[in-house]
Formats: sequence, structure tokens, C-alpha cells
Amino acid sequence: MKFICEKNKLQEAISVTQKAVTGKSAMPILQGLLIDASEGKITITGSDIDLSIETKIDANIIENGKVVVDARLFGDIVRKLPNSSIEISSATDNSIEIICEKTKFNLIHMSADDFPVLPSIDEKNIFSIEQKLLKNMIRGTIFAIAQEESRPILTGVLVEIKDGRINLVALDGYRLALKSEAIDSDGSIKAVIPGKTLNEVVKILEDEGVVNITFTSNHILINLGDTKIISRLLEGEFIKYTSIIPEEYSLKITVERNKILNCIERASLVAKEGNTNLIKFDINDEFMVLTSNSQLGNVREELNIILQGEPLQIAFNAKYMIDLLKIMDEEEIYMEFSSSVSPCVVKNKQDDNCTYLVLPVRLLNN
Amino acid sequence: MKFICEKNKLQEAISVTQKAVTGKSAMPILQGLLIDASEGKITITGSDIDLSIETKIDANIIENGKVVVDARLFGDIVRKLPNSSIEISSATDNSIEIICEKTKFNLIHMSADDFPVLPSIDEKNIFSIEQKLLKNMIRGTIFAIAQEESRPILTGVLVEIKDGRINLVALDGYRLALKSEAIDSDGSIKAVIPGKTLNEVVKILEDEGVVNITFTSNHILINLGDTKIISRLLEGEFIKYTSIIPEEYSLKITVERNKILNCIERASLVAKEGNTNLIKFDINDEFMVLTSNSQLGNVREELNIILQGEPLQIAFNAKYMIDLLKIMDEEEIYMEFSSSVSPCVVKNKQDDNCTYLVLPVRLLNN
Repeated sequence: MKFICEKNKLQEAISVTQKAVTGKSAMPILQGLLIDASEGKITITGSDIDLSIETKIDANIIENGKVVVDARLFGDIVRKLPNSSIEISSATDNSIEIICEKTKFNLIHMSADDFPVLPSIDEKNIFSIEQKLLKNMIRGTIFAIAQEESRPILTGVLVEIKDGRINLVALDGYRLALKSEAIDSDGSIKAVIPGKTLNEVVKILEDEGVVNITFTSNHILINLGDTKIISRLLEGEFIKYTSIIPEEYSLKITVERNKILNCIERASLVAKEGNTNLIKFDINDEFMVLTSNSQLGNVREELNIILQGEPLQIAFNAKYMIDLLKIMDEEEIYMEFSSSVSPCVVKNKQDDNCTYLVLPVRLLNN
Repeated sequence: MKFICEKNKLQEAISVTQKAVTGKSAMPILQGLLIDASEGKITITGSDIDLSIETKIDANIIENGKVVVDARLFGDIVRKLPNSSIEISSATDNSIEIICEKTKFNLIHMSADDFPVLPSIDEKNIFSIEQKLLKNMIRGTIFAIAQEESRPILTGVLVEIKDGRINLVALDGYRLALKSEAIDSDGSIKAVIPGKTLNEVVKILEDEGVVNITFTSNHILINLGDTKIISRLLEGEFIKYTSIIPEEYSLKITVERNKILNCIERASLVAKEGNTNLIKFDINDEFMVLTSNSQLGNVREELNIILQGEPLQIAFNAKYMIDLLKIMDEEEIYMEFSSSVSPCVVKNKQDDNCTYLVLPVRLLNN
């Protein structure tokens, strides 16, 4: 193997593919990146078996070949090299030689034969979506996935394509996040993508361009052109989320998102210390009162609202409200309530592309 | 106690005084900030006994008084309040009331009587120095203090004022850092300031203005006007550092700081994994070769230099070289050597305001 490539391109390729290398694997080969030089390109691949990322960059290939090198060390070395051409070649003693200007590294490599083979996916049925839109949808839902492994399916995000729409749904038993957008496709799909995969995908997606997505029964392929992301899907049936979202309400308020977020964040400073992080809403005619207390003190916040319906007292875990209010993007939002023991539904005032739901905390005097 | 003040000023005062609150103390009162309202000002004080910081801000004092509140919680609350006037007053039940626009907090307080009394220091003999210059001198030496507590005196920085100069010196047995500047004073002092104190002082010093310093036999008072920093001094005799710095050399090289720093940083990537972090210099006529190796591979760097004297081979712990090369500010530097077992002295080419010294690592074949 021998090739010459530009430092910047190589550094970027390493940075993208490293995202699939967890560094926690017991298998040393999975701490590595596969470098494959052939056909005028080098292909760099990182994998933890569940998630694999490969990316191609142009290079002057002098001799085909492939090796596996330690991802972190190789990445650190390339990042520190001068901004110039880099020549990489196999040396005799299980090492590669990296030459850049007056710097020469010899780096032990592992055998490319031991590197996991990526599943081959036939890109027949492709869904196309704007990278920016997909990134936005993932960010708008992923915070609501379950952190515990007790119900593995809930550690992923449901992707549902049907009737010309794409829906992303995450829920953890206490709250639900749904983002929905039109998609130019008459296909239909239902798959659950691991949260870990989507966390990395969000970092790779850019603000421009389109991404092509292919599903198989076990895998998703996200194709960005030079970069391909392949992840296994989570097995099992996702919860029928539509039945959870209430269609009616007895109270609807309009409120400025930033103002209620500030109120809840402040109130939770006192509540956090009591470990309940409980915040109470007392919703009245023209304003709502938010209160919270712990052994350290108490707080009372007053907020102007527009109210339609009956006054209500209800309590929430402040964290769940803060999470969704932070991620929403419109300045004015609706909050819909049915009773003090029914979920609260939060929506944008204008765009109906998202629905958030939070279960209340039942108080002793309810 | 009752006063009204501006949120921004209060937030800044909390941020400065919090730096003395370690949060690790077993005494709950030391987790607090003392708020003292009197004479048209409020004085906020944080202390961990060794280090105390007090700062005064203007306020509309309606009733004198003082309380101690939890530093972190009080700081978080004030930071989250709207940018407006804040009214703070004692309530009946061992709590203070914080009112800002439509927000009202009640916060449990502790008794001001339990708060440590700051040593009273008579500001008779004052040394004045530019804040920026002092910050620069601290940054240029503090990295070389000892991290281990086995010789407590070396966990501090020696401040020496004599003959119209101020010297700051830190050393840890492997390296030494000395910064020296002219000072407009005919006084004389020798004191060792704890590294922890200087770490906080560096964050508080600004790029403009002068600071007044007073020493007593046990304390230093750093007076920035509205803010005063009082720290105990370390007890004991500092090492006679002048006898450590060689006055002669058999080899002197001139090298670009940034280039040798990059070479050493790259080389240390391979060396770090071997835990020795050892880097070898082979200094020859017109260039030097830097090499390093471990079980992961090896590296060779070549660097142009200007050489005066005899060629030499010598080895160092890369970290010590990196630390000092990062902190120096001139682009061209001198490195002076006597033998492969004698310390290397590093200086700026132009300004002689700093002297760095690193002990070499003795190699088996020396």
C-alpha cells in the first residue's frame, strides 16, 4: 500500500469515521480504522459492529493495499502534521510509514483481514431528505429516548414513513417527542434506529445537501455521497404512540416559550436540591403562577398567558419541560391540558410539525 | 437587611467572590457567601480560610444587615434572573427574600456570626504593578509548581522583590520557571504564595489598571480597588534557585518556538503511549533531529536551527518542554546546553524577562 493525499482531507475523513469507534470495545481491531487504498481513492472505515461509518477521499494511489491503524493515535498524528501532502505506505515490519515534510512516523498496524465486513446493502428503494431537515428532526426528538436499557426498543427513535410524510418519535414512559415533515415518497417504512447512531449522525449531517436513506430488515444505510453510515436497527415493536397523544383538551394556553423556559429554569434551581425537581403550575385567568420549594427555600414566578378553558393546577418534573422548551424553535407555543392527572401537550403556535407530551406528577392532594 | 441593586453588578460580584469557595469544605458556612449591607455598599465575601475574596458594589441600602447564603445556589439564582433591579431583604424565618420583576425567591440563610473574620491588614507598604504584567508573570511560572504535596513549599510561587525588580519563581524538582520584571519600588520582600491562590488571582486580574500588593509575615493582600484578595503565605524556606540556573553553556541553539513545539507535540504522541513520554534531541550542525519511540511505533523529526558550540545528544520528558514552549511568547528562542546530563536553559531571543530550565532524562547509554 502506498498513497499520497492532502492532510486536510485525510483529517476530515478520520474525524468522521472515528465517530463509529467507541474506544470501549474489548476487541482491539474495533479501536482501529480500516484504510483501503484502491481505484484512485482511499476508503476509511470505523466500526463498532452496530454502527459503521465509511468515507472516501481522493488520493494519488501508488500501490493498492489495506491496513488497520489505531484510530485515536492515527487521528492525533494526522491532526498535528503540517498542512501539506502526506505520504503513507506499508513498511516491512507490520508498520506503516507516514511522511509529511520533515516528519516521519512508523506506526504499528493491525491486519485488515480481522476488520468486520460491512453488510452489503442494495440501494434500490431510496428515501431522499434534506440534511438540514433530518438533523432538525433528530435533534427535536432524540432527547426523549429512554436512558435505561430496561426496554431496549425505547432507547431508539422510531422512523415512520407513510402517506408522503416522515415521522420521528421518541418516548421514555414520562414524555414523548414527535416531529413530522412532508417527504417526496410514496414508500412506506417503520424502523427503530438506535439513539447512539443518531447522536453520531447529527454530528455528521450538514446544513446543505440531500441525504439518501435505504432500509433493509436489519439495517439502515444513510448515504451522504462520500460518506456512508450503516447501522443496525433495534428489534421489536415500538409502542403505538398515536393512542397516547390526547386529541382533546379542556384548557389551552398560549405562552412565550422563552419566558416560561426562564421561569421553569429558575424555579428548578430550588427544586433540584430536593431531588424531586417538582414544579407546580397554577393556571388562572390572565396569568399562571409557577411555584417550587425544597428545604433550601421556595420560589414563586408569575407569567402572562392567554387562556382558553378552565383554570387548572398541575405539577411536572421541571427537567422534562425544560428539555422540550429548549429544543422548540417558535417563540409562541400552545400548551394543552385535560386534567391534573392527564398529559400536557405542547405545540408550536404556527407550524404543526412537532408535538411534545409530558406526563404530570400526581400530587398528594389531588 | 434590605437593599436594591443591579443584577449585572451583583452577578459579577458573586462570580469573583465564589472563586474563594472551594465547595469541598466540611464546614457548611464555608460553602456560603457573606453579604454585608452597610454604608451605601454591599460587600460580598467568599472564603476557604486560606484564601478570601471580598468585593464591594453600589446598592441602595434601605436597612443595614448581614447574612450568609449558599454560594452556588445564590449565584445560579442571580444569574438566571432578568437583567433588572433586584431587591433582597431578610424575611422572618431565617430566610432572605429575593424579588426581581415577577419572580420571588425565599432562600434559607446561615448566620453571619459564624463566617470567618478576615485578617486585618494595614496597607502601609504597598507594591504597585500593572494587572496585565502580573497576570503574565503568574501564567509564565505557575505551570512549574509541584503537584505533589511532599514538599509543600514547592506548591507555591516565590515572589521576590529587591533591587527594583520583581521575580516570580516556580520549580518542582524537574524544571524551573523564572519571570523577572522591573518594578518601581525600593522595598524588599520574599514570600511564597500558594498556587491555588494564584490560579484564582489570574482569573480575576484584568488587562488594564494597576494592582496594589501588601505583604505581612503571614498574608498577602492583593487590592484591585473594589475587590480585595487575601491569602495566607506558605511557610518555610524556598530553594535557593539562583544556584540551580547554570551561567555557562557549551552549546547554544536558536530555534523557532512554534516549530520545535509542533515537533515535540507530534513526537510525544507516540511516546505518551509508552508512559515515559521520552523525546531525544540529536543536535548537529545545521539541524536537530528529534526522535521518540514506543511499542506503537516511532517518529523522527528534523528541524533547522542555528548552532553555536559542540553537537550534543540529550533526552527530555516531552511534557516539560511542551509546557514551557506553549507559555513563552517570542517567536525565536535560545536553548542552552552543557552536557547530556546537565539542565537545558530556555530563553527568549530578545527579551530577557524569563528563564526556563528543564532537567534531562539520563539514558542508559549515557
